[in-house]
Amino acid sequence: MTKNRLEAFSDGVLAIVITILVLELKIPHGTDFTALRPLLPVFLTYVLSFVYLAIYWNNHHHMLHTVHKVNGRILWANLHLLFWLSLIPFVTGWMGENHFAAEPTALYGVVLLMAAIAYTILRVEIVRHHGPDSILATAVGRDAKGKISILAYVTAIALAFVDQRISDALYIAVALMWLVPDRRIESRMQS
Amino acid sequence: MTKNRLEAFSDGVLAIVITILVLELKIPHGTDFTALRPLLPVFLTYVLSFVYLAIYWNNHHHMLHTVHKVNGRILWANLHLLFWLSLIPFVTGWMGENHFAAEPTALYGVVLLMAAIAYTILRVEIVRHHGPDSILATAVGRDAKGKISILAYVTAIALAFVDQRISDALYIAVALMWLVPDRRIESRMQS
Amino acid sequence: MTKNRLEAFSDGVLAIVITILVLELKIPHGTDFTALRPLLPVFLTYVLSFVYLAIYWNNHHHMLHTVHKVNGRILWANLHLLFWLSLIPFVTGWMGENHFAAEPTALYGVVLLMAAIAYTILRVEIVRHHGPDSILATAVGRDAKGKISILAYVTAIALAFVDQRISDALYIAVALMWLVPDRRIESRMQS
Amino acid sequence: MTKNRLEAFSDGVLAIVITILVLELKIPHGTDFTALRPLLPVFLTYVLSFVYLAIYWNNHHHMLHTVHKVNGRILWANLHLLFWLSLIPFVTGWMGENHFAAEPTALYGVVLLMAAIAYTILRVEIVRHHGPDSILATAVGRDAKGKISILAYVTAIALAFVDQRISDALYIAVALMWLVPDRRIESRMQS
Repeated sequence: MTKNRLEAFSDGVLAIVITILVLELKIPHGTDFTALRPLLPVFLTYVLSFVYLAIYWNNHHHMLHTVHKVNGRILWANLHLLFWLSLIPFVTGWMGENHFAAEPTALYGVVLLMAAIAYTILRVEIVRHHGPDSILATAVGRDAKGKISILAYVTAIALAFVDQRISDALYIAVALMWLVPDRRIESRMQS
Repeated sequence: MTKNRLEAFSDGVLAIVITILVLELKIPHGTDFTALRPLLPVFLTYVLSFVYLAIYWNNHHHMLHTVHKVNGRILWANLHLLFWLSLIPFVTGWMGENHFAAEPTALYGVVLLMAAIAYTILRVEIVRHHGPDSILATAVGRDAKGKISILAYVTAIALAFVDQRISDALYIAVALMWLVPDRRIESRMQS
Repeated sequence: MTKNRLEAFSDGVLAIVITILVLELKIPHGTDFTALRPLLPVFLTYVLSFVYLAIYWNNHHHMLHTVHKVNGRILWANLHLLFWLSLIPFVTGWMGENHFAAEPTALYGVVLLMAAIAYTILRVEIVRHHGPDSILATAVGRDAKGKISILAYVTAIALAFVDQRISDALYIAVALMWLVPDRRIESRMQS
Repeated sequence: MTKNRLEAFSDGVLAIVITILVLELKIPHGTDFTALRPLLPVFLTYVLSFVYLAIYWNNHHHMLHTVHKVNGRILWANLHLLFWLSLIPFVTGWMGENHFAAEPTALYGVVLLMAAIAYTILRVEIVRHHGPDSILATAVGRDAKGKISILAYVTAIALAFVDQRISDALYIAVALMWLVPDRRIESRMQS
C-alpha cells in the first residue's frame, strides 16, 4: 500500500511537470506559420524535455516494479528526485528562449545531472532495503548506462562554454540511449 | 499492476491537459456580457477540444480495459499519444484567438491527425502483444471510424487554406461521430 | 475497475481545478498588508469556489461509493459534470475581480446551475443503471437539497441584476446547506 | 475504498501544489548567470516550500496508513488541510519576491500555522473515529513535534516585524526537525 501511494504521487508530479512544460509554448500573435518560426527552438527543447521526463517515468516505473517495501529513506530519496525533475520546466524555458547561449545550456545539464544523481541515490536506497540479492540489485549490475549519462552531462556542462551545440548533441545522445526501455530488469523479471 | 500505473499516468496527463485548456480563457477586464463576446470563439474552441480529450479518455479507457499485459513498446506508444494530446492546449489557444485564419485551423488538424496516428500505433502494439484473437483485435475489426477520422483530418488540413469553416465543420463532425462510445468493444466484452 | 478509473480521472480533474483557482490570486507588488487589500474579494471568492468544489468532490465520492457498474452514458454524464466544474476558475476570477458587478455574479450562478443540472443527470443515469431499489435510489429519495440548490441558483442569477449582494448571500447559503455531508447515503449504507 | 480515494485526491492536490510552486520561478530575460541572481531568494523560498509540502505528504502518508475507516468529519478535516496547503504557492511567491519585508514573511508563517492547526484537527478526528487505543493515538502520544512547530510559527510571525531573518531561521529549523520521518508511527506499526 505504501508503495502504491509513492507511485501515485510520483505519477501525479511527473504528469503535471510534463504538462506544465507546454505552458512555455506561448501562443504567437501572428496567424501564419512564420509566426511559429521563433517558437521552433522552444518546441524542440520541449520535445527533448518531454522525452527525458518520459524516460524517467518509464525507468521509475520499472524500478518500482521490483520494490516490495518502502521506508522513510526511500520516500525522501524519491521526493529528492521529484524536486530536480520539477525544475525541468524552468530550465527548459530558459534554454528554449536562449538557444545559442552557453549558460542556459549548461544549467539544463546541471538539472539533468542532479536528477541522475538523485535517481542513483533512490536506486541505492531501494537496493539497500531489499538486499544485494534482490531483483533490482542483480538486474542493474554495474549500471553502465547510468554512469555514461552522468559522464555525458558533466561533459555537456563544461563544453557548453566552448560550443553549446556539442552539449545539445550530448543531451540528445543520452536521451536516445535511454529510449530503449530497461531490458535488464524486464528480462530478469520474466526469467 | 503495470497496467494500473499506465492508466494512472495517462489519466493524470489527460486530466491536466483538459484543465490547462481553460487557462486560455483569459478573464476579461470589462464587467458586462459584451466583454465576453471576444471570448466566444475561444470558448467554442475550448468546448471542441474538451470533447476531443474526453473522447480520447473514454476510448483509451475502453481499449485499456481489454489489456492484460504491458510491454515497453506499449508504454512508449502510450507516451507518444500523450505527447500529441499535450499539444492540444497550444493549438486550441492559437485557433481560438485567430478563428478566421487558415494556418491555426490547419495546425489544429495536424495535431488531431498525429494523435489519431499515435492512437492507432498504440492499438496495433496492444493487439500485437495480445494476439489476433484477443478481445480488442476482434472488437475493433477493420476500424472504420479510425480510418474515417484520419481521412477527415487530412481533408480538413488541406481545405483550411480554401475556407477554414469547412475544416471546423469536419472537426465537429468527427467529434460527433466518436461521441457514441465504442460499443464494439463494450458489446464483445459482455457477450 | 471501470469505476476506479472514473473516480481517478474525476479526482484528477477536481484536484487540478481546485488548485488552478489559486492562480487567480496574483502576487501583489507591494510588501505591506495594504497591498493585499485589493485581493480580499478575490480571496473570498476563492474560498467560496474551493468550498463548492470540495462539496462536489465529497458528494461525488459518496455517490460513486454506491455504484457497482458503469456504462457509456454514466461516463459521459460524468465528463459533462467535469466540463462545467472546469469553468469555475474562470467565473471565479471574473467575479473576484469585479465584485460589485451584476454580470460576473450572474455568470457564476449560471455555471453553478449547469453543474447542478449535470450532477442531477449523472445521478439519474446511475440510478437508471442500478435500478429503483438500489442504495442510491432509496437514499436520495426526493432530493430536496438538489432542488433547493437549483431554485436558489436561478433566483441568484435573476437577482444579480437587482442587487448582487443577494446573489452572493444565496451562493453562500447553498454552500452552507451542503457542507453537511450527504448523511442520507451514509446512513443507508451503514444500516 | 473511501480511504483510497481520500489519499488519491490528497496526492493529486499536493502534487499539483508542489508543481505550481515552480511557476513562480519566472524565466529571466538575460542569458548569463547574473540574470539568475535576482531569482535566488525566490529559488530558496521554493526549496523551503517544496520541503514543507514534502513533509506534509510524508506525514499525511504515515498517518493515513493507520486509518481503517473514514467519516464525513475526516473528509472535511482533510479538505480544510488541503485548503491551507493550496495557499502555499501564493505566500511563497510573495515572500520570494520581497525577501527583506516583514509582512510577507509573517503571512508565510500564518499559512504554515493554519496548516499545522488543520493537520492537528485532522489527527484529532482520526483518533476520535478510531478510539484512544488505536495505533495512531498511542503512536503520536503527546505530539511534542506538533506543539513545537505551532509555537515556532507563532514566534516567527511576531518576530517578522522585528527582524525577518529570525523568522526565516525558525521556518528552516522546523522543516529540519520534521525532515526525520515520523518514526513514532513507523516503529509502533512494526512492533
